[in-house]
Amino acid sequence: MERVPILKIGNILLVSIQVDMSDQTAVALQEDLAERIVATGCHGVIIDITALDIVDSFVGRMLSTIASISRVLDAETVVVGMRPAVAITLVELGLSLNGIRTALNVERGMELIAIDRADDDHDDPDDDLVPEPTASP
Amino acid sequence: MERVPILKIGNILLVSIQVDMSDQTAVALQEDLAERIVATGCHGVIIDITALDIVDSFVGRMLSTIASISRVLDAETVVVGMRPAVAITLVELGLSLNGIRTALNVERGMELIAIDRADDDHDDPDDDLVPEPTASP
Repeated sequence: MERVPILKIGNILLVSIQVDMSDQTAVALQEDLAERIVATGCHGVIIDITALDIVDSFVGRMLSTIASISRVLDAETVVVGMRPAVAITLVELGLSLNGIRTALNVERGMELIAIDRADDDHDDPDDDLVPEPTASP
Repeated sequence: MERVPILKIGNILLVSIQVDMSDQTAVALQEDLAERIVATGCHGVIIDITALDIVDSFVGRMLSTIASISRVLDAETVVVGMRPAVAITLVELGLSLNGIRTALNVERGMELIAIDRADDDHDDPDDDLVPEPTASP
């Protein structure tokens, strides 16, 4: 059975799907990803589908499942590199990839995850602390 | 024919090889990479071979060719994610991947390329300029 490699780049796990996904490969990828998120404490998962000529309901469901698993492990999932033809077919098939965020390429996906994290940090109560005044001589 | 996707991350092009390379796929990858290096002006190419169970003389030659092409286009090539078994087999086969730099994972590969570029910048003649003394009142 083929395993899809998971690459760690900073706070992000990158998965490039290039092979036809079987049931086994999909389950293995979900398990591997969940383990890697927990082991590394990464905040984001980027799934690159540049190599896919078609995204059918099976792959769509797999992407949704990965996004859901990542979410409960406190990681954002962004799907990147979708071809124009794939987007058209998806809509024609009535698959709208609910709950999955997309970006044009890996760099934009990384920006999206960074912005999300920055927003989260902004809610940090520490930000509201007023610095102590320094004693003047 | 399958095409191996090339992902741009900052100044680096990332290629994750997951499929069995045929002659055609290898040539297409070399052409695509050369075009992307010129189009993006990227300084580094990282080739991830985590998914490869074996690196034979064909793949070894392909990696060497990619490294040579990148070099003349002013980009460093680093091969990352080699499995222990692959390294052992390579040495047993007498293939030493001459002229190819390796790193343990993508992050270390990126560091390697960043360090190289920093060294290059250090050779910049501007560094040797003595700052003008400021006039004291």
